[in-house]
Amino acid sequence: MTQYTFALMDTRVVAGPLRRFTADVFVGAGLAAADAAIVADALVWANLRGMDSHGVARVPGYVEWMRRGDINVKPHMLVSMEAPAVVLLDADRAAGPVAMTSAMHHAVRKAGEAGVGLVFVRATTHTAALGYYTLIAAREGMAGLAFAASTPLMAYHGARAPGVSTTPISIALPGGDRDPLLLDMSTSLIAMGKLVQARRTGEPLPEGAALDAEGRPTTDAKQAVTPLPVGGPKGSGLALMVECLTSLVLGNPIAAEVLEQTERGARHRQNCLALAIDVGRFGDPQMFDREARRLVRVLKALPRAAGVDEILMPGERGRRTFERRTREGIPLPASVVTELSKVADALGVTMLGA
Amino acid sequence: MTQYTFALMDTRVVAGPLRRFTADVFVGAGLAAADAAIVADALVWANLRGMDSHGVARVPGYVEWMRRGDINVKPHMLVSMEAPAVVLLDADRAAGPVAMTSAMHHAVRKAGEAGVGLVFVRATTHTAALGYYTLIAAREGMAGLAFAASTPLMAYHGARAPGVSTTPISIALPGGDRDPLLLDMSTSLIAMGKLVQARRTGEPLPEGAALDAEGRPTTDAKQAVTPLPVGGPKGSGLALMVECLTSLVLGNPIAAEVLEQTERGARHRQNCLALAIDVGRFGDPQMFDREARRLVRVLKALPRAAGVDEILMPGERGRRTFERRTREGIPLPASVVTELSKVADALGVTMLGA
Repeated sequence: MTQYTFALMDTRVVAGPLRRFTADVFVGAGLAAADAAIVADALVWANLRGMDSHGVARVPGYVEWMRRGDINVKPHMLVSMEAPAVVLLDADRAAGPVAMTSAMHHAVRKAGEAGVGLVFVRATTHTAALGYYTLIAAREGMAGLAFAASTPLMAYHGARAPGVSTTPISIALPGGDRDPLLLDMSTSLIAMGKLVQARRTGEPLPEGAALDAEGRPTTDAKQAVTPLPVGGPKGSGLALMVECLTSLVLGNPIAAEVLEQTERGARHRQNCLALAIDVGRFGDPQMFDREARRLVRVLKALPRAAGVDEILMPGERGRRTFERRTREGIPLPASVVTELSKVADALGVTMLGA
Repeated sequence: MTQYTFALMDTRVVAGPLRRFTADVFVGAGLAAADAAIVADALVWANLRGMDSHGVARVPGYVEWMRRGDINVKPHMLVSMEAPAVVLLDADRAAGPVAMTSAMHHAVRKAGEAGVGLVFVRATTHTAALGYYTLIAAREGMAGLAFAASTPLMAYHGARAPGVSTTPISIALPGGDRDPLLLDMSTSLIAMGKLVQARRTGEPLPEGAALDAEGRPTTDAKQAVTPLPVGGPKGSGLALMVECLTSLVLGNPIAAEVLEQTERGARHRQNCLALAIDVGRFGDPQMFDREARRLVRVLKALPRAAGVDEILMPGERGRRTFERRTREGIPLPASVVTELSKVADALGVTMLGA
């Protein structure tokens, strides 16, 4: 059995060993080695980008879903419909990163043939950070878009209870010699992960970000349970449309099943959409690069709001964090290390230093 | 010369004559009759739906753009690239509704052939309400999506000056025997049109909706000039990605040209994207209908927030307004009637009762 040692003194770990450790844990939970490597890479990528709520802190949850069978460790993923520009991928409850990576590769292939490629992913599971997949398209010189429909944790506008999912949306654009522009957002004002984090630290939440258990607006992180949609009807409207466009189109509803507390609703599920656009067919990629650099320069030179040091582009903070954490390691809270170590132990993977 | 009489006593006008009057004004400004009918229908549709900021109040502005040549009244629209699932439509500065209607029909045709159809519209002009076009797809049993990039009027997150456009986004889903679900939103917290309206009435704005001329946050409608993005970096990130995905991909940049105050930036322009998805290929349309009705029922039954009488679905308020205004007429403020009458007079179209 492989043993892993992490430099826990400063609670920073190097990405490579963390990735291999994470993959080994998933292999221990029953995943094929190739699939485990994809899931581990997606989670550690999120940590490197600073999205710790979508990183290895998810490992215990994923392992529990594998144990319960919500994540199928031996899925038979199937292209059950294909047309010139589209693919329907029946994911058979595969780990989200396995299904979504396959989906975006199909989308890129279709876009290469037809100009645009659209893939619906039916019955997948937690996708981690969507930017991981839209960047697959961007690295091929294409635009990538992805939506995911998940468990309804966010309030629907006008309601004081959850009704729709926080619904991640990601768009990436090719970078050429620049870095790709990468938008990766939820439709809630603050992400569920940040709400959970704030609950731990007790840091007050912004106005309009959350409801308490009684459904009353609150800025007290300790009382906050339900995130609110960004822009009221806009955020919850987008979330509803994504549930309809994926889950309902694919005949695999999530929100209604959970809200009606059916047996099916008790299982963790997601449905997703991956879209790639072969943007090089519509204009000169070099001109795009030049104009993107120009637009970034112009926006960054705008007069700044009070207290703002720098105007940032979508994905810029994440890229900087990625570079820093690649050099300096990923900071892991002791609680996460303890959890990981416990889960690993139970699967016969030993983490030294924990 | 045709003369039009509107019932001005109660400042309500019937849609049919208003549509014909509006079309006649555009014919007077040089538009072909068929194109004028499309533009008039799109504007009056917005009025019927209650989106008065995108209705006939725009006629004087459109006529002025036609006079200046920003809107080309005799455009040679050209499909300059076509692949199995995509079309590039060079709109030659056509009136937005003419270009976008054509674009969505191309998208629906492509989706019928390939599963998904994507159309980029290069160098079009003000598109009015995007929902008008996404509904074209929904009526064909398809999902419709549309984005538009326009003049940068909205603050980019962190800046105290405009940097990106308020960027409309629309998604429509087929209705079967229900009404289509229709999301039609801007990426600003409140739309520019509502900001202008509030400036007139003096009604206070919500926190975080606008900046004053100095770039300071304000809730005073009289002082508000620059709308703020919904969710800070989320709204302005979406807007930036739409400018890149349309204007920069198509080599027809808008934001940077306006912000750098170039000659090209002084001309009104838009670039758009229309997408249709043949959702019936991915699942049973009858099950979709059934599940959509179920989800709507479940969401409407959620416990309501304080002060909320009813939980509304995307497009529901607009549909009700449409039905009411179809029956009872479209309320037009006297100032709009006066403006319309003035523009009409100058073009040899007479509006009686004004």
